[in-house]
Amino acid sequence: MAQRVGILTGGGDCPGLNAAIRGVVKAAAGLGWEVVGIRRGFEGLLPPHDTRALTLESTSEILTLGGTILGAASGGRFAAKTGHGEAGRLPAELIRETQQSIEKLGITALVAAGGDGTLSIAQQFFEAGTPVVAIPKTIDNDLQATVITFGFDSAVACATDALDRLQTTAGSHGRVFVLELMGRYAGWIAIHAGIAGGADVILIPEIPFRYEAIARQIEKLEKLGRNFALIAVAEGAREEGGEYAVKGPMRADKEAQLGGIGERVAAEIKKRCGKETRTVVLGHLQRGGGPTTFDRLLATRYGVAAVQMIAEKQFGMMAALRPPDIVAVPIKDAIGKIRTVPPDGNVVRTARALGISMGAASELA
Amino acid sequence: MAQRVGILTGGGDCPGLNAAIRGVVKAAAGLGWEVVGIRRGFEGLLPPHDTRALTLESTSEILTLGGTILGAASGGRFAAKTGHGEAGRLPAELIRETQQSIEKLGITALVAAGGDGTLSIAQQFFEAGTPVVAIPKTIDNDLQATVITFGFDSAVACATDALDRLQTTAGSHGRVFVLELMGRYAGWIAIHAGIAGGADVILIPEIPFRYEAIARQIEKLEKLGRNFALIAVAEGAREEGGEYAVKGPMRADKEAQLGGIGERVAAEIKKRCGKETRTVVLGHLQRGGGPTTFDRLLATRYGVAAVQMIAEKQFGMMAALRPPDIVAVPIKDAIGKIRTVPPDGNVVRTARALGISMGAASELA
Amino acid sequence: MAQRVGILTGGGDCPGLNAAIRGVVKAAAGLGWEVVGIRRGFEGLLPPHDTRALTLESTSEILTLGGTILGAASGGRFAAKTGHGEAGRLPAELIRETQQSIEKLGITALVAAGGDGTLSIAQQFFEAGTPVVAIPKTIDNDLQATVITFGFDSAVACATDALDRLQTTAGSHGRVFVLELMGRYAGWIAIHAGIAGGADVILIPEIPFRYEAIARQIEKLEKLGRNFALIAVAEGAREEGGEYAVKGPMRADKEAQLGGIGERVAAEIKKRCGKETRTVVLGHLQRGGGPTTFDRLLATRYGVAAVQMIAEKQFGMMAALRPPDIVAVPIKDAIGKIRTVPPDGNVVRTARALGISMGAASELA
Amino acid sequence: MAQRVGILTGGGDCPGLNAAIRGVVKAAAGLGWEVVGIRRGFEGLLPPHDTRALTLESTSEILTLGGTILGAASGGRFAAKTGHGEAGRLPAELIRETQQSIEKLGITALVAAGGDGTLSIAQQFFEAGTPVVAIPKTIDNDLQATVITFGFDSAVACATDALDRLQTTAGSHGRVFVLELMGRYAGWIAIHAGIAGGADVILIPEIPFRYEAIARQIEKLEKLGRNFALIAVAEGAREEGGEYAVKGPMRADKEAQLGGIGERVAAEIKKRCGKETRTVVLGHLQRGGGPTTFDRLLATRYGVAAVQMIAEKQFGMMAALRPPDIVAVPIKDAIGKIRTVPPDGNVVRTARALGISMGAASELA
Repeated sequence: MAQRVGILTGGGDCPGLNAAIRGVVKAAAGLGWEVVGIRRGFEGLLPPHDTRALTLESTSEILTLGGTILGAASGGRFAAKTGHGEAGRLPAELIRETQQSIEKLGITALVAAGGDGTLSIAQQFFEAGTPVVAIPKTIDNDLQATVITFGFDSAVACATDALDRLQTTAGSHGRVFVLELMGRYAGWIAIHAGIAGGADVILIPEIPFRYEAIARQIEKLEKLGRNFALIAVAEGAREEGGEYAVKGPMRADKEAQLGGIGERVAAEIKKRCGKETRTVVLGHLQRGGGPTTFDRLLATRYGVAAVQMIAEKQFGMMAALRPPDIVAVPIKDAIGKIRTVPPDGNVVRTARALGISMGAASELA
Repeated sequence: MAQRVGILTGGGDCPGLNAAIRGVVKAAAGLGWEVVGIRRGFEGLLPPHDTRALTLESTSEILTLGGTILGAASGGRFAAKTGHGEAGRLPAELIRETQQSIEKLGITALVAAGGDGTLSIAQQFFEAGTPVVAIPKTIDNDLQATVITFGFDSAVACATDALDRLQTTAGSHGRVFVLELMGRYAGWIAIHAGIAGGADVILIPEIPFRYEAIARQIEKLEKLGRNFALIAVAEGAREEGGEYAVKGPMRADKEAQLGGIGERVAAEIKKRCGKETRTVVLGHLQRGGGPTTFDRLLATRYGVAAVQMIAEKQFGMMAALRPPDIVAVPIKDAIGKIRTVPPDGNVVRTARALGISMGAASELA
Repeated sequence: MAQRVGILTGGGDCPGLNAAIRGVVKAAAGLGWEVVGIRRGFEGLLPPHDTRALTLESTSEILTLGGTILGAASGGRFAAKTGHGEAGRLPAELIRETQQSIEKLGITALVAAGGDGTLSIAQQFFEAGTPVVAIPKTIDNDLQATVITFGFDSAVACATDALDRLQTTAGSHGRVFVLELMGRYAGWIAIHAGIAGGADVILIPEIPFRYEAIARQIEKLEKLGRNFALIAVAEGAREEGGEYAVKGPMRADKEAQLGGIGERVAAEIKKRCGKETRTVVLGHLQRGGGPTTFDRLLATRYGVAAVQMIAEKQFGMMAALRPPDIVAVPIKDAIGKIRTVPPDGNVVRTARALGISMGAASELA
Repeated sequence: MAQRVGILTGGGDCPGLNAAIRGVVKAAAGLGWEVVGIRRGFEGLLPPHDTRALTLESTSEILTLGGTILGAASGGRFAAKTGHGEAGRLPAELIRETQQSIEKLGITALVAAGGDGTLSIAQQFFEAGTPVVAIPKTIDNDLQATVITFGFDSAVACATDALDRLQTTAGSHGRVFVLELMGRYAGWIAIHAGIAGGADVILIPEIPFRYEAIARQIEKLEKLGRNFALIAVAEGAREEGGEYAVKGPMRADKEAQLGGIGERVAAEIKKRCGKETRTVVLGHLQRGGGPTTFDRLLATRYGVAAVQMIAEKQFGMMAALRPPDIVAVPIKDAIGKIRTVPPDGNVVRTARALGISMGAASELA
């Protein structure tokens, strides 16, 4: 059956989204199907509809392009309904209204590319009868049910490049540099980039840290003749036992009050070790820019898989990487709980074996 | 027990080897062990021994460096004993002599980083009683028993960058460009880079091609208004039914006589389609240069895992990626047979769904 | 006076052309002018006209894009009329016909972006009364009258990156690598990339070489403990006294017969020094791909300057860099003679002071 | 006469310093001279001397390396004696003492690589009889007497890459991004990167800005259908008429009190335009990392020129680029006054012609 596929990208932008869109369009074209791009996430489905036709021609130069040509939602009726670990329920009225839009637009199947929030909405539409399939996307790599999401390799590459740059200037000046990276609840970017970029200390939300442990690591390096140090810190890292230790999702405005964790770590190191210390907050640079080769391929494969799932009527399913294959898994397996860095897992043990401090109290023993 | 670990890198160089060496040195240092670098693969173990001490200091700046600081073997007594798919047996005398060297050098455990040939030698030493562990390495990603080897992501990134460059000049001039890539027996680089770089035709050793199918694809593109095309061809790709179709490993000198497959494909397209056609042979650029972030991390993890395997006396084992973990698998599972691209597997199907021609006869039906 | 500016890009494509086009469109929009893009160089002016309107919107994403969105000419009535050093005269009839087209299209001023050939045509149109201004463009940097042209920095960066890649693999294997670079008549790319990329030998058309001098350099390196070498050779480099020494422009078909200079140099080194030697021909990779930051800025400035020259009625003039300013110089000063590397100039002396061999007979004294 | 050349790098680190050091060592080796590296700028000359021999071997892999292998000074007796625009006088005692060190170390000629401060010290030593030559270096490109200094192209490339990254995320989310760049007194990085990276507003110290002008530009873009904007702001940019307008060099501690200009601009835009606004402070990333090809070549040429100047006894002179040549100019011509962006010069006019707002009051007319 010829389909008219609607595609939307939800949540923050992420390198590879356009490659995924192009994958959907190319695979759909091969089957003789049409594709409708929906702007600003699910919001674009609400009247007045905000859509554009996506053709081989209009998507021919987007493979390498960062961001999303469909735009990201900001506010709106779908906003704040869902969040990490605690999916909100959409009002039945909103679902009904949106389904009427989908019908009116002639969309016969929906592809939703997004993270926890977007997938949670997609699942609710699936449960309400909409034929939807999903493509996982997070910079943070904290989604369940897939080995990896696109955008993550690009973000790690950006963070590692920043560590490389700081390495040379840190060494020249004998300074400590603190690089604050994305990762409010999961430290994947920090630990991957930290290892790949030769960091001396890596602080992640999953392992509450002690300033004493960091200071000890810097002293240890000095004894080895190293007068500089690099610290990779996830934005969600927290001091052990401190009042800001992660107990549950923290509200963004409270976060803002506290000031950046990078600055606080730098100030404390300066105080404790007397070292010249500088902070760089990488921020949005991590999510901007074009995808790495790895992410281009992965996103393209997800896009193609989404179309194949529609062809096979595998609705309510999400494309996932089970190397070397892309497989279909239930959307519901991916949502509701984020995937964090196991504190005693393979990657953390690797970091420790390399002599990297995780700032943990156990290191002080 | 404190160890004195010997490490060697065999076969062609590959981005990430130095990161793996550094990983071994750092992890060993954490356990209070020494590391001896053995130059020019196994050759360096033969008298007069060609080794150098590897310390935290001497490996502190090699994480991002391409090639191998230990050098690659060229010729020598271990050369040509092994090859893809048909491991040669080392003379018992050579093994004995080498083991005496290992003892004389005080090496208590050996880490061998390499591809099929090197691993095959490592396995023979293991069988002869040497405590050896292995780290897999190939540009080509054609090793069994691990999802991926380091060096591959870097090679694919290099190849994809070349396709990006050719894309803009091909489009400006309305030309066909043929990019010849590494891959004598397996087309992994060509198909990954081809998809990630937006190629229109991908030719791999696993799928014998027909010029007619390529010509038809170029005509199809022209009907869609595209006056240029990009062709990614693995060096081992062969015409169907032709006398050069892969029947078994081909000898290098025979290969050389035939001229590059890239040139031959270009000439044939010019003849059949009357299009201006150009060829670029990427060659050694694919194996030179520093590792991508992905390969830095993977190689580092392999290096650390090798030390952990020694600590646990898991000899005869190789570090392998089973995402998200690094695990130990028997070396013998990785050798003797190369991993090729399944002609009907997930990746080829993705390429076809994208409208990419694999040059196969079946496309002419 | 409101203008309707026509813009065309001639000759081979070159990183930065799109940035220059965007610069013209933006600067014209600021003055309330229209811009018409002419496809395929001057050919697009001939009936049936091949043009497209260029607006702020249609050029909003081309700043970083390689190639030229206007396409390059291939064959046609303007082809082969001009060449390096010996500008051909266009038939008066062709000029008249084209001028009628220009009038019919309502074009009130013409911007021609190109190298020696395109500028030579532009000059003839200027002499025939067409209000034309020019933007210099060559990968090769061999144009008179400007310190530098855009595209050159991008090409040198590409070539230097290739040398970096070959460096690590050459060092690992103890090999000699020959990298063949663009530069049929001028060795600018080879000498700039050769110095920036740490080459040991640089061969350029301006300095006929002797194989003996190259062999001596390789032996000298070996005595210093270096068992590998990097050779950067411009495609137009020639052996001294040989029958192929540059006497005048050589015809392309004759060139092709001779085979690549890179291969010949490699073969000779292998014969003379007994070293394993490999060749890489960088070819079209040098002109493909997006512009460097330097070229983006320079091309943009040239585009803006072209519009300002039109506003000031400085016809027959070309934008040129006289650091830190862009100035207007007569087009005729830039054509008819190419700018070559002075054999005793500053850059060659720098190379020699660094211990780099230019392969010259004088080094054998 | 065989020399024993001492080389030091002063001030902040900068991509290309190691390439310059390597150039000095290679050129000196060619003349049979020795080179002594002096650590931590002039401080390393004071007892106990902090030096290391620099040989072809020890500098063979530093061409592409960021930072300086000689380390940068931090504090010490030479610190704070000099500054932008107002060179302090060194105590005669300190000069005498240092000259005794130079003699004791057997250094017969000194190469000082640095910016305004370092060059000012070098000039005082020259006046006191020390045979010194200089190599100009600033990230900021604000030195007199040379067209360009190395490090600048690398910094601009880093800043432009950041703008590229922000472009895609800004476009996806319809946000305003403010990128704060280096440039306390001169806006060269901001204006070059701003043009090359497609910024909509560029704020530099040389042109005091009005928030009203920025807001008007954002409104103008919105009318053209652009719902996002990019603002490149030099750290030294100041509001017109405000109490912080640049009147003279501002002390660093005062600066710190004021908070970053990027944050202030973002807050004001949000208030005035109601747009979602984000800030990224690029900071030390601009000075870290390896040099671009352009900077590698330029730094290498400066290093070679320094040795040639010593050979020709051109003491008190500095290497300078007068394209296409490197020439020697008096050190004193380069110091005492920084080179700023001419508010009505060629580059600013180019920015304005492109429709970029400089935030100037004149734009409100």
